[in-house]
Amino acid sequence: MVSFPTIEEINDAAERIQPYIHRTPVFTSKTIDHLCGRRIYFKAENLQKVGAFKVRGATNAVFSLLDNQLKGGIKSVKAVATHSSGNHAAALAYAASCGAIKAYVVMPENAPEVKKAAVAGYGADITFCESTQQSREDTLASIIEQTGAVFIHPYNDYRVITGQATAARELLEQVPELDAILAPVGGGGLLSGTALSAAALKPGTAVFGAEPEGADDAYRSLQAKKIIPITNPQTIADGLRTSLGDLTFPIIQRYVKDILTVSDTDIINAMRLIWERMKLIIEPSAAVPIAAILTKKDRIKGNKIGLIVSGGNVDLEKLPWLKRN
Amino acid sequence: MVSFPTIEEINDAAERIQPYIHRTPVFTSKTIDHLCGRRIYFKAENLQKVGAFKVRGATNAVFSLLDNQLKGGIKSVKAVATHSSGNHAAALAYAASCGAIKAYVVMPENAPEVKKAAVAGYGADITFCESTQQSREDTLASIIEQTGAVFIHPYNDYRVITGQATAARELLEQVPELDAILAPVGGGGLLSGTALSAAALKPGTAVFGAEPEGADDAYRSLQAKKIIPITNPQTIADGLRTSLGDLTFPIIQRYVKDILTVSDTDIINAMRLIWERMKLIIEPSAAVPIAAILTKKDRIKGNKIGLIVSGGNVDLEKLPWLKRN
Repeated sequence: MVSFPTIEEINDAAERIQPYIHRTPVFTSKTIDHLCGRRIYFKAENLQKVGAFKVRGATNAVFSLLDNQLKGGIKSVKAVATHSSGNHAAALAYAASCGAIKAYVVMPENAPEVKKAAVAGYGADITFCESTQQSREDTLASIIEQTGAVFIHPYNDYRVITGQATAARELLEQVPELDAILAPVGGGGLLSGTALSAAALKPGTAVFGAEPEGADDAYRSLQAKKIIPITNPQTIADGLRTSLGDLTFPIIQRYVKDILTVSDTDIINAMRLIWERMKLIIEPSAAVPIAAILTKKDRIKGNKIGLIVSGGNVDLEKLPWLKRN
Repeated sequence: MVSFPTIEEINDAAERIQPYIHRTPVFTSKTIDHLCGRRIYFKAENLQKVGAFKVRGATNAVFSLLDNQLKGGIKSVKAVATHSSGNHAAALAYAASCGAIKAYVVMPENAPEVKKAAVAGYGADITFCESTQQSREDTLASIIEQTGAVFIHPYNDYRVITGQATAARELLEQVPELDAILAPVGGGGLLSGTALSAAALKPGTAVFGAEPEGADDAYRSLQAKKIIPITNPQTIADGLRTSLGDLTFPIIQRYVKDILTVSDTDIINAMRLIWERMKLIIEPSAAVPIAAILTKKDRIKGNKIGLIVSGGNVDLEKLPWLKRN
């Protein structure tokens, strides 16, 4: 029988990462409440270090390694490594810098300049590769062989899942009585962590995943009762183009009530609404749960709904509502 | 001898408006601190009701009227009125709706659609006029004559100044030890209120005004020791194109240490920096104090600096760093 991460491990993670992360605020908006017909609590992980919840999982992974090393459980850890074009790369670079170890990050050559600059800014060693999955994996394998760095997967890792779980744990401390929590789902690290925290702390709180229609592998996988990877994701929500992993899927299958899918038009409308009315910069992936509650109200019961606003890293030159871009 | 608003009046205002406004959070950013060489505390009035500090002054004015009416001091108040194309119009419309009285707002025909929609959304009665000062004043005078509405000036009114003063009062509660506070200056309502709160609560805290070079009437007026109105303001900071009033100027002259001016390029750079690094939507006027501390570090002494982030109402179709716009 599979043993999922426990609430004690989530509590330990919260304590472990606390010096390195923000306790992000929870915002409300009467305008949004009115549109949704209920009270919405926005857990603002866009204001988190490196602009995304990803720093929770990355710092938990890095400091779990360092804690184990201190206890003599493993040999000396000098470096971590990953391949990512997104928030996990910056998060791991930041976490490694906090732990005074090296980070090696494999990024596709065509990654946005702003992301390259962020990763470099945290002192990581970047290796560029072609933008295929094969090139990423080969390049990473070669770096790990050369450097002995420990691979930290962006989501299919219990240390990462446990770290991401601390966001919902914090939200439930800040707003104890929630009827439901929505989180976006890409690889499933945030959603599985959210589900674990809610199931342990507030079993009456229903957890939903929100997913773009053009990358709806979580929806299809839950329907099929097995992982159905996405082959050619088509969505503006760049953080949600990945597929579920074999560690995240069983947790989601067990604890998540439903997956709600939304169109890119709904995502862009929701993103713009939050920019205009709440004055918060959120990235397209973070708008997905908001789009879900705006367009699929009837699927979610209850009056107090929590949303994990996953991140705020947007290319300010290319806003999706400006047609020329 | 002129008698300025007292700290007791500011305390009363804070209590009076508390049910209708947000206690906005104070944010910090290690990146910004590093760039400025000191610790910066951002009082996020962009997250305030109607997206700007203006709601403090407007609600204080409206509820001061209603309080006086209750005490029998004045005849029945049925409506308030103002002319404004900006945040004061929306703020007064909101405040009137909270007090269940009518608001009449005179707006130039060419005001941005988003501002018209905001004012209408709070239930105000809008009258459009030509975009000259004369047309605004004539139209307003005629409405006041017809309706008996009480004129609430956007800044040259002690009730408004006292309301705006509650922002710095709150900031000094949240961060008691500040070496300096910077606020933008247009008509001077926020700056004079900020100076009054600081002088009363923390006389050691230096207060600076920050002003666009293309609308530097406060700088010139302090130099000349008399009000020198701006005749043809040229700045992207649309909230700061107005000139000091005869009530705000003496307070600023007495309590403000200095006025720092910045170019529109500095303003746009500062605005973009806050969007990118802090994930907060701030309007150009709100970026002016940030631009001042980034470009004129040497003029401000001390390690702990508070900034009033005045508002976040921006046309998301027209971002100043996108050249086409």
